[in-house]
Amino acid sequence: MQDSIEKHWKRFCKYYYSESELGLSLDITGIKFDESYFTEMGPGILAAFEKMRALEGGSIANPDENRMVGHYWLRHPELAPTLEIRREIESTIERVKVFAARVHQGELQGAHGDFKNLLIIGIGGSALGPQFVSHALGNPITDLMNVYFFDNTDPDGMDKTLSRIITELGRTLCLVISKSGGTKETRNGMLEAEDAYSRAGLNFGRHAVAITGADSVLNLYARSHQWVDVFPMWDWVGGRTSETSAVGLLPAALQGINITDLLRGAAAMDNSTRRGVVDRNPAALMALMWYAVGSGEGRKAMVVLPYKDRLELFAKYLQQLVMESLGKSHDWNGEPVHQGLTVYGNKGSTDQHAYVQQLRDGPDNFFVVFIQVLKSRNEASLEVETAITSGDYLAAFLLGTRQALADRGRQSITLTIEQVNEFSVGCLIALFERAVGFYASLINVNAYHQPGVEAGKQAAAEILGLQAKILSALPDKAPGKTAGEIAKSIAGSAPELVFAVCTHLSYNGRARRVLGIDESQAEFYRA
Amino acid sequence: MQDSIEKHWKRFCKYYYSESELGLSLDITGIKFDESYFTEMGPGILAAFEKMRALEGGSIANPDENRMVGHYWLRHPELAPTLEIRREIESTIERVKVFAARVHQGELQGAHGDFKNLLIIGIGGSALGPQFVSHALGNPITDLMNVYFFDNTDPDGMDKTLSRIITELGRTLCLVISKSGGTKETRNGMLEAEDAYSRAGLNFGRHAVAITGADSVLNLYARSHQWVDVFPMWDWVGGRTSETSAVGLLPAALQGINITDLLRGAAAMDNSTRRGVVDRNPAALMALMWYAVGSGEGRKAMVVLPYKDRLELFAKYLQQLVMESLGKSHDWNGEPVHQGLTVYGNKGSTDQHAYVQQLRDGPDNFFVVFIQVLKSRNEASLEVETAITSGDYLAAFLLGTRQALADRGRQSITLTIEQVNEFSVGCLIALFERAVGFYASLINVNAYHQPGVEAGKQAAAEILGLQAKILSALPDKAPGKTAGEIAKSIAGSAPELVFAVCTHLSYNGRARRVLGIDESQAEFYRA
Repeated sequence: MQDSIEKHWKRFCKYYYSESELGLSLDITGIKFDESYFTEMGPGILAAFEKMRALEGGSIANPDENRMVGHYWLRHPELAPTLEIRREIESTIERVKVFAARVHQGELQGAHGDFKNLLIIGIGGSALGPQFVSHALGNPITDLMNVYFFDNTDPDGMDKTLSRIITELGRTLCLVISKSGGTKETRNGMLEAEDAYSRAGLNFGRHAVAITGADSVLNLYARSHQWVDVFPMWDWVGGRTSETSAVGLLPAALQGINITDLLRGAAAMDNSTRRGVVDRNPAALMALMWYAVGSGEGRKAMVVLPYKDRLELFAKYLQQLVMESLGKSHDWNGEPVHQGLTVYGNKGSTDQHAYVQQLRDGPDNFFVVFIQVLKSRNEASLEVETAITSGDYLAAFLLGTRQALADRGRQSITLTIEQVNEFSVGCLIALFERAVGFYASLINVNAYHQPGVEAGKQAAAEILGLQAKILSALPDKAPGKTAGEIAKSIAGSAPELVFAVCTHLSYNGRARRVLGIDESQAEFYRA
Repeated sequence: MQDSIEKHWKRFCKYYYSESELGLSLDITGIKFDESYFTEMGPGILAAFEKMRALEGGSIANPDENRMVGHYWLRHPELAPTLEIRREIESTIERVKVFAARVHQGELQGAHGDFKNLLIIGIGGSALGPQFVSHALGNPITDLMNVYFFDNTDPDGMDKTLSRIITELGRTLCLVISKSGGTKETRNGMLEAEDAYSRAGLNFGRHAVAITGADSVLNLYARSHQWVDVFPMWDWVGGRTSETSAVGLLPAALQGINITDLLRGAAAMDNSTRRGVVDRNPAALMALMWYAVGSGEGRKAMVVLPYKDRLELFAKYLQQLVMESLGKSHDWNGEPVHQGLTVYGNKGSTDQHAYVQQLRDGPDNFFVVFIQVLKSRNEASLEVETAITSGDYLAAFLLGTRQALADRGRQSITLTIEQVNEFSVGCLIALFERAVGFYASLINVNAYHQPGVEAGKQAAAEILGLQAKILSALPDKAPGKTAGEIAKSIAGSAPELVFAVCTHLSYNGRARRVLGIDESQAEFYRA
């Protein structure tokens, strides 16, 4: 036993990565890999480094969309491939700071006075980063603005959010975030917000700011309606890596979060993850562990368990960053691969009470990324037992659960940060961005496109086209027609989709439904 | 093509389950199964029905803990196996209603007046249900109380929550929820809250209510400290099925949610899921689909995608209900099986922008449970395009995404409800409770114990024991000792755990750390 203890400790010391400048360490010894693993993976990871250098140098790293991939420049504008890009980045950061200061100082106001609320309208990459950062770094009492989100096209969800601020719209600033301007959920959210302002007798444009591409429809709309301002979103920044662009920086700065430190943290991590030496590059280590644990095929899901309430939304943020980047049908050679890396998780120790039962006793189809935060709280702590605090319990639950899982052969990575602040959050974001890039190289897929997302949008547009045809085809009055009958009059339409659309319409005042014995045989006519 | 359209429609009509009394329908045709499947599974599902009848009749359905499993009685007290249990259930529901009314009418008050805030202190089954229901059914403006949670032992998380209500503690009612009373996170949360009241010069007991077992330490504590009240939590109700006990009902009633309708919805679903005919039993249909899609081995994860903001926390709730129930190492015969059913998801269409890329293009390792809500909103809707509303988009995104996934052979179930209200939420909870029970029978595991959770708690306790030994073993002053050296003085201790604990202590004022060249060789001494 003493032998095994010694062996573990030696392995731990050998592979333990820590960097005091980052305030971060990484323990990969919870993953099973052989002494020879790094040697075997040497050529692959060197190629990944090489690809990353080309990407950072301004190559067309995302050829599908004929785009450069430049999120790393956002933290190091001096590395941008052209002076123009460098100046755009620098001037945008400056403009964000000045804009936020003007809002905070009351220089920019709403119809009813200083802006106290911020309504962020965006989805996916235009919401997940801002939500994560707002939750991680906000403080209800000292925040400079209260932050709300429209992150869906659910009317009831928007009504619920609006109800909180409906009497204060004249002091609410809306940020509408969409690179293309064509994202329907965001467009709808903007129109619903505009309508609410209008019903309140307020000019929406006076309370609205856009973050969008140079030639987007949103940009045109914002300028023609005299919105307060427009911030740029460049085509060389992907939505899921846009947290350190205006998309993430403007909401954070308005809330009162120190974006200089956030950028500093990301830049520091970028420096560390640019190192060409694997064991001094935490992103390379992480990517290699993902590869080892899932045989380079994503065989195990990544359960992200930060033991800290403030990091509760990190797994949700990572779902997009990781799954949208790595979930690909074909590799760079055009071979079908169906790659991916599933991510889920919320926070510990809370999730121990939800599904650690399955993690320990169920199928060995996952690995855990534990995130430990060293500092428990700002103030002195109560002792809940002699010489034991709530924070000691939190730390012990992490170590205990890790041990209980390891006893059953379940694998894990442990990432440790000193505290949750702007710098460390910047570090975390940059660490996973780079790890995803390296891992994509190892499995030979394009991490920067998302071709599979279009199909769903296209199909949704077809459903809306079908809805229009159904509205025309519905009889004016009873007796109505069944979905099967209506479908016959619309070439190529599937009756079960017609049924679904008719049922939806009947619950929203635009069709009437007469139930038959069987609900699928219900008859519909115009409302 | 017309042939295939006809075939699909016939299959849809054949298997479509709908029940207008429940306002719920279920489309299972997105799962691949043969005509013969139901016949093949006949004996298994009949056995599941039989087991369920025995369980509802009061058998010791959870023999490990020598317990009955009685959550279905909570909605049908007349089915309880003894008159005593029936009366306990009925009187508790009545007491919950009376208690909530007394709070709302200001008969029960805090030190500073009417109770306006509710701080719920619980974790796992004592938080996930209340959080889901509060979010699904709350309305910020009309709720009778504002609801906050301590659902972890994170000191900073508790400080952040407390900061919102710190000036109103005299008008804040605390519910401390723990069946055993021994859950450390909840105990710690209670002590932290008590301390905050005490620092504010307030008597905590006057603002505290317990929901706990008859003989628990929490019960004794509450009674000896003259808490406002104590509500029962019975040993025949598991935490993950406790939403319709006082655990879920009291928080909901206090918030202003109609618990009579919630119970009515659950009871109605119980009636439907007691049917001995598979195709009229939605829980049996669902369990059979889970079995079909994952070959009875949980091979595919269940992605829960409600297209409705209010149902955003349902997947989190289901993670516990499903994974803790089904994630088991051994079956009833004692054979090792490592069963489980992984659950993740948030809401649509939001999640389309996070990971539908992987679902469509990546590995086929999941199925989706789409949840459609027919009614878009309470008020009339703006048209975002001609004759198209935000709600039409939401519906179209669900149908479109389902189609885009089906085009790639990805499978799904679609559950449709009319609207999100107390009744339908009760239905949903009861539906999944029963489906989990049936599926557990099909795979022959005990759904009602959680032996794997103990190991982590035990290991955490050992870590805290180690911490105490380390605090004794630390040198009083510099030069300190390395983790390796300290570990040698504590028999059987692993140096990497000693290192982790020392590092934690050093960031929380109880040890000092002197860094060496390598962080793992840092030296520690007493602070």
